[in-house]
Amino acid sequence: MSHAVTCTAPVNIAVIKYWGKRDEELILPINSSLSGTLSQDQLHARTSVMARADFASDAIWLNGKQESIENPRLQNCLREIRKLAAAKQTHQQGAPLPTDKVHICSVNNFPTAAGLASSAAGYACLVYALAQLYKVGDSLAEVTKLARVGSGSACRSIYGGWVRWVMGEAADGSDSIAEQVVDEHHWPEIEVLILVVSDHKKTTSSTAGMQTTVETSSLVKHRADKVVPQRMEDIQNAIRARDFETFGRITMQDSNQFHAVCLDTYPPITYLNDVSRGIIDMLTKYNAHKGKIQVRAFSWQVS
Amino acid sequence: MSHAVTCTAPVNIAVIKYWGKRDEELILPINSSLSGTLSQDQLHARTSVMARADFASDAIWLNGKQESIENPRLQNCLREIRKLAAAKQTHQQGAPLPTDKVHICSVNNFPTAAGLASSAAGYACLVYALAQLYKVGDSLAEVTKLARVGSGSACRSIYGGWVRWVMGEAADGSDSIAEQVVDEHHWPEIEVLILVVSDHKKTTSSTAGMQTTVETSSLVKHRADKVVPQRMEDIQNAIRARDFETFGRITMQDSNQFHAVCLDTYPPITYLNDVSRGIIDMLTKYNAHKGKIQVRAFSWQVS
Repeated sequence: MSHAVTCTAPVNIAVIKYWGKRDEELILPINSSLSGTLSQDQLHARTSVMARADFASDAIWLNGKQESIENPRLQNCLREIRKLAAAKQTHQQGAPLPTDKVHICSVNNFPTAAGLASSAAGYACLVYALAQLYKVGDSLAEVTKLARVGSGSACRSIYGGWVRWVMGEAADGSDSIAEQVVDEHHWPEIEVLILVVSDHKKTTSSTAGMQTTVETSSLVKHRADKVVPQRMEDIQNAIRARDFETFGRITMQDSNQFHAVCLDTYPPITYLNDVSRGIIDMLTKYNAHKGKIQVRAFSWQVS
Repeated sequence: MSHAVTCTAPVNIAVIKYWGKRDEELILPINSSLSGTLSQDQLHARTSVMARADFASDAIWLNGKQESIENPRLQNCLREIRKLAAAKQTHQQGAPLPTDKVHICSVNNFPTAAGLASSAAGYACLVYALAQLYKVGDSLAEVTKLARVGSGSACRSIYGGWVRWVMGEAADGSDSIAEQVVDEHHWPEIEVLILVVSDHKKTTSSTAGMQTTVETSSLVKHRADKVVPQRMEDIQNAIRARDFETFGRITMQDSNQFHAVCLDTYPPITYLNDVSRGIIDMLTKYNAHKGKIQVRAFSWQVS
């Protein structure tokens, strides 16, 4: 008997940035973050999972190419989901056995690792599909926790609309979950313009980058402890009130500050180039000319 | 009777950066800073001052072109020096009267406002020349205070070698002075390579830039209060011990952090471009290859 599920999942773009972990294994962040989930009409990940007792081993294909299943984050997701499945085995009509091997095929319809949250969409999709297949994840909150151990920001792609990832306090990560602030119908006027300045793979991965930042930046802790909590409050209020002026200002300030702590890292990390800085300048001048914030600038290295 | 003095003054390059004022009028900084004074063999300002009772008015020529004498910082310097001169008039053999008008000619032998501390060298030179002319400024410490009201970092160009500008605490600026840490013979192996990435005038002046940073950056106060005091200690120890490894690391970190708080400003200020970032990357790789810090990267927007 074979069991199969196919899902798609969206990209999310952080407006309060996630940068820095307090636990590398469990992917627990040093600050809460907030993002907008994009429509799946343009960008999405699509993942099919199939489990069969007679598959020789687990296997994964990304964008048509077989990749190593030994990836530790992938193993985290598989392990946690099978643990849940084993715990409630008796209730699961039509679900595969936790011992069945699984084959995974995932494709993004946009460049991978160019800063477009490909791993967020990919892990959200994978975890959601596996949860369907194994009939686990009774609440979306539980699914966000499973997605988080694949890729931190993936937890925010489980919901549409505006989503906060609450950093939590527990050492086991049980309270580090994503929650919807408002749904996708709340602020339909918001449109996102994505400018691909470069589709090259980033020279510093988010994982390696944020680790070095936490180790060497003398500003990042102040950001996490003092700056972000206030911004989280303010931007949620702005979103609820559909106050674009405040929303745009905080979004740009937080994007700039994320790049600032990257630059304060030793050796420095830079994701902006002259083209992206030219775009920021142009938007700054445009907003100044209009006398208010009409368009917002933000950057592509999202998390 | 005419009185004339000609002086030259050097450029200084900050390794702990001055960025942000607590008093715009008196030019009092929010953090102490430290610089190396360059040899005058390559770069210097040269200033001649002449006072005569029959000059119709004060006047200034910069690089051969007459400029407005009404510049408030120039007026600050003239006023403070004449005040000192008036106070000790009876002792001054061969000095002009404080009421005599003065003509000033100043030239830099390098690009102005391209980040090469042209105003630091210029005001150091002007103030030192006027102090000679009016026979005031009994100590160099006093001269550094007079230079500071022209351009903050000018106070560090009064000395050779390695120089700290102590931020001070007094509201009247009386304790905000420059002091020599070690003289120019202490560490003769140090050589400075200046790479002019652009000789265009900066789009944001230091004065305007640091004002916006103090008003809008949520990181700069933490830098000033917590990060810089420790770095000042550490880098002075490294200089005294001629420990290039520590010196180079702190220099690069502080340069990066200065650019980071510029980027954390709203709207963001950027002085680095793709070329300067390419140079930083190259030096990072070179040092990693050598296994130690052999060359240091730092940036040109000095203060």
